[in-house]
Amino acid sequence: FNSQLADLPVTIFTVMSALARQHDAVNLGQGFPDQEGPQDMIRLAADALLDGQNQYAPLTGLPELRTAVAQANLRFQGITVDADSEVIVTSGATEALAASLMALIEPGDEVVLMEPLYDTYLPVIRQLGGIARIVRLQAPDWALPRQALADAFSPRTKAILVNSPMNPTGKVFTAEELAFIATLVQKHDTFAICDEVYEHLVFNTPHISLMSLPGMRERCVRIGSAGKSFSLTGWKVGYVTAPAPLAAVIAKAHQNLVFATPPNLQRAVAFGLNKDTDYFATLAQDMATQGTLLASGLQRLGFGVLPYQGSYFVMADITPLANGLDDVAFTRLLSEQARVTAIPASAFYHADPPRNLIRFAFCKRPEVLREALNRLEAWK
Amino acid sequence: FNSQLADLPVTIFTVMSALARQHDAVNLGQGFPDQEGPQDMIRLAADALLDGQNQYAPLTGLPELRTAVAQANLRFQGITVDADSEVIVTSGATEALAASLMALIEPGDEVVLMEPLYDTYLPVIRQLGGIARIVRLQAPDWALPRQALADAFSPRTKAILVNSPMNPTGKVFTAEELAFIATLVQKHDTFAICDEVYEHLVFNTPHISLMSLPGMRERCVRIGSAGKSFSLTGWKVGYVTAPAPLAAVIAKAHQNLVFATPPNLQRAVAFGLNKDTDYFATLAQDMATQGTLLASGLQRLGFGVLPYQGSYFVMADITPLANGLDDVAFTRLLSEQARVTAIPASAFYHADPPRNLIRFAFCKRPEVLREALNRLEAWK
Ligand SMILES: CSCCC(=O)C(=O)O
Ligand SMILES: CSCCC(=O)C(=O)O
Repeated sequence: FNSQLADLPVTIFTVMSALARQHDAVNLGQGFPDQEGPQDMIRLAADALLDGQNQYAPLTGLPELRTAVAQANLRFQGITVDADSEVIVTSGATEALAASLMALIEPGDEVVLMEPLYDTYLPVIRQLGGIARIVRLQAPDWALPRQALADAFSPRTKAILVNSPMNPTGKVFTAEELAFIATLVQKHDTFAICDEVYEHLVFNTPHISLMSLPGMRERCVRIGSAGKSFSLTGWKVGYVTAPAPLAAVIAKAHQNLVFATPPNLQRAVAFGLNKDTDYFATLAQDMATQGTLLASGLQRLGFGVLPYQGSYFVMADITPLANGLDDVAFTRLLSEQARVTAIPASAFYHADPPRNLIRFAFCKRPEVLREALNRLEAWK
Repeated sequence: FNSQLADLPVTIFTVMSALARQHDAVNLGQGFPDQEGPQDMIRLAADALLDGQNQYAPLTGLPELRTAVAQANLRFQGITVDADSEVIVTSGATEALAASLMALIEPGDEVVLMEPLYDTYLPVIRQLGGIARIVRLQAPDWALPRQALADAFSPRTKAILVNSPMNPTGKVFTAEELAFIATLVQKHDTFAICDEVYEHLVFNTPHISLMSLPGMRERCVRIGSAGKSFSLTGWKVGYVTAPAPLAAVIAKAHQNLVFATPPNLQRAVAFGLNKDTDYFATLAQDMATQGTLLASGLQRLGFGVLPYQGSYFVMADITPLANGLDDVAFTRLLSEQARVTAIPASAFYHADPPRNLIRFAFCKRPEVLREALNRLEAWK
């Protein structure tokens, strides 16, 4: 068997969700909301099924969804793109990321990453024969280490992967940080893959797409997720925006990986992207409230709570509570004894991880978050 | 950009479907049915959406669907598998194929293929650094060239890819041919990837899975497609059956490629796989009738019609009608002038293709097939 794949661990999300089920724990591990997305979208997706939207969608997606993605680029980020040649619908952001990396990388090419990082980035790059140059952001504020980042670029750099809002830290890159990254990308005549699946989940902080910066329109692949923007993670509808010549190559990767995405879901997502600004504001506001509820509760319990400005996640420093246990042992104990599941942050590092951080998801109903806090309180 | 991908042509299915639209042609190119799949499945998929099946499904699929796939293996092929560790749900058979190849191949590994072949096989193998050893089946009967096949195996062979029923030829491999392949696979201690998406679409011929042969249970990856088995190609639900150690690696490829497949569609497909034998018999019977309608009509018009025993497709020899035009020029002419679209079979060859064959899809309503025949008649 392919040894790189065979050696990969089962994703931490599956491991921890299984542990949560086993102990009937409140699952604040894997990042999925426990409230359904917009009923009108769900109804529209159901109607489209009954209405006969059941054969292959076009390879790059339904025109109505590509148009909606193009319009959302303009409306939220001021980016003008051509719906026909610069937007591709994928089966979720995971496929979008794999297809984008396939389109860009040849064996020996380097990709600059920032860790902690999402757990598919590294194996996909390695499988393509790419070489990851990993720069570490440091807790608690995850500021961009400018010199290290600049040093990570080389003549072999093909792309940098920028995840903002960032999983697992909740960091939202600032305008200054993005400008610095843009300078490097242009200086080295390279590309940026922008994983922006949490674009609408920012709290009192604007989300700025790297693609919206001067000179970056032709250098960015921007990835969005209907799952995250509409609390419908099961639908697995993602979308890629990229300059036409690159988009054409990403489409060819998509052609071989999946080919097309269910048309009824695409139709509903097109409708969703056209929702008024209130919808997106309320989504962010509700998530912010849930984040505050969980973060302040964790702080009261004695966790060190790290700053976050977006995403579904808050990182917690376990030092005050862990009695010397590392993050893996501590999350196991929490699942088993407190019956609350979190993710050990070491899973997001390629080597030598910090051992004092764990990630909690707050994309859950307030009563669920309260129940988790009560259990932690009772256990402590 | 990745030069292998960048150099790939846009898939012939997209090219010909665009040509069909442009000329308002009857599209007998891309293989998708124009009759909706079972209404009870569609209704169930819609109900599941409204019912809250909208967050991530488990990585390897809903337990109910994995159980249904395991039961179908037993019921239709007498293959006993463990639903938990030997079945993986994918976003269509295209993803199943990519994930299976990724799990098996390392750079330098050889894969034996038979051409004419489906158009994603070769690019995926090449992208993984695999080396394709291609054996050609010859029209009109596509008999297995045993010596050539035996010669294609080497100590570097990792797998053979067997597509039965076969696209584009409609060939269904015989028990003797499969036994010969099984001998080679065992002799060389290698694997077989069995693309059996048309397993239920056979006409007066049994479909035998290579995996059901003695000694092959641990050497086969068997790929099925809800799109093809239930005339719901847009749903993009596929499934893989493989021995547990290999299935675990395929699951890791799936983890990085897509991660999960929409749960409401999975639930409906589980229901579909449990349908009684009548459903599958009627599906095949209707398709056989359509095939006969088209094939006999083409023959009447002067095409050479090649034998087929399964799938959505019939191959036609254009020599009597083409006035020296090759398959590409002739299909273009047919789309533009007769307003009937077919696929030039040269698209299914890696090099030096025959130039006298085109593929027609008969997965269309009888009145649509009759209209196509009328147009061809009028044009001739
Ligand atoms: C695809 S499962 C993981 C979901 C997620 O994005 C996360 O929990 O980080
Ligand atoms: C995935 S589009 C092609 C459909 C098909 O299987 C074919 O026409 O051969």
